[in-house]
Amino acid sequence: MLLEMKFYDITVPISNSVPIYDGDPRASVDVHLAMAEGGPANVSQLCFGAHTGTHVDAPNHFIDGTRRVEDLDLNKLIGPCRVVGVAADVTAIGPEHLTGIDGAERVIFKTRNSNFWATPEDGFRTDFTYITPEAARKLAEMKVQLVGIDYLSVEKFGSDDFATHIALLEQEIVILEGLDLRGVAAGDYELICLPLKFTGGLGDGSPARTILRTL
Amino acid sequence: MLLEMKFYDITVPISNSVPIYDGDPRASVDVHLAMAEGGPANVSQLCFGAHTGTHVDAPNHFIDGTRRVEDLDLNKLIGPCRVVGVAADVTAIGPEHLTGIDGAERVIFKTRNSNFWATPEDGFRTDFTYITPEAARKLAEMKVQLVGIDYLSVEKFGSDDFATHIALLEQEIVILEGLDLRGVAAGDYELICLPLKFTGGLGDGSPARTILRTL
Repeated sequence: MLLEMKFYDITVPISNSVPIYDGDPRASVDVHLAMAEGGPANVSQLCFGAHTGTHVDAPNHFIDGTRRVEDLDLNKLIGPCRVVGVAADVTAIGPEHLTGIDGAERVIFKTRNSNFWATPEDGFRTDFTYITPEAARKLAEMKVQLVGIDYLSVEKFGSDDFATHIALLEQEIVILEGLDLRGVAAGDYELICLPLKFTGGLGDGSPARTILRTL
Repeated sequence: MLLEMKFYDITVPISNSVPIYDGDPRASVDVHLAMAEGGPANVSQLCFGAHTGTHVDAPNHFIDGTRRVEDLDLNKLIGPCRVVGVAADVTAIGPEHLTGIDGAERVIFKTRNSNFWATPEDGFRTDFTYITPEAARKLAEMKVQLVGIDYLSVEKFGSDDFATHIALLEQEIVILEGLDLRGVAAGDYELICLPLKFTGGLGDGSPARTILRTL
């Protein structure tokens, strides 16, 4: 008998009330056809920005003319992943917090941010824990392929040079933002992160259903 | 050294020109912020119906008050899958075509439809190969968990009773529609099918990035 593997869904659902990064479009989930109103079927309609809820950033988000989300390598999006716990008093992840991740191909930071998802009525919060540019450069040196965090940006809110994003994206490291890690312990998993496939627009990113599977 | 597994992306991209089932909303992929126009980043915006491109149907698509797409079991969406080749002269998949699938947990039919994706300028085609209600009932008896096909519906175009959908959905079998199987041979794979996670609307379905992985 096969041992059943366990899935953890670490995706924040898109909804009319999901917190949205300042300046991004609002999300909407509406009814297009309803059986209750005589329609032949139920059909919903969705509108949202490419960086809504749990999503990936492609290089073309901040470095114009580079790789687009539809061209991200599935081999980066799927595979072994380490969830690293970050103490609740840390608001900036620096190089000193990058211990115990040698050899990890994909790294996701579980921070105090995950608890923000418990109170979506707070709206978008700007005081989230982020990754410093120095830590981003060290992650790039470590040849990590994907870096994830549990709020809507890896970058300090208010940055005007986007140095953390650029340090990762210029090395073609996938950025995975907006994770909900409340239900997941630190440790090693298989990550499965699948952004929508679409063409047009600017290919800067996409919501991505993201799950962890026990190894 | 680990043997690298191979991925096949069988997802039809959402775009402004993707063929849309009659009566469903048009899809749009637009620019919200552009670096080329002085924006701090590139940010795209998407709008589409829940049954656009490669997508899943949840029971609540045709049986009001039943399971919604956000509640689909990941254990049905991920796991062993058989791709069954259907001869190019078959326009209706009947019970007589369900050979060689005993014991398959997930079944995807590769039909003449896949070639339709080569000419999206034809728009939505109504002459697609479909699954008869008799075959759907037999698939349900066989305890299949997911049934997929390579165009926008499992149902004969113009059906007024939706008997194929209902035979599958009332048994909580996931329906996966709009696959592009041109690059995939018949055989056994691991299916990874991840619909978007959203709440609101009617939970009838969702576009789903869908890939096959070699076993």
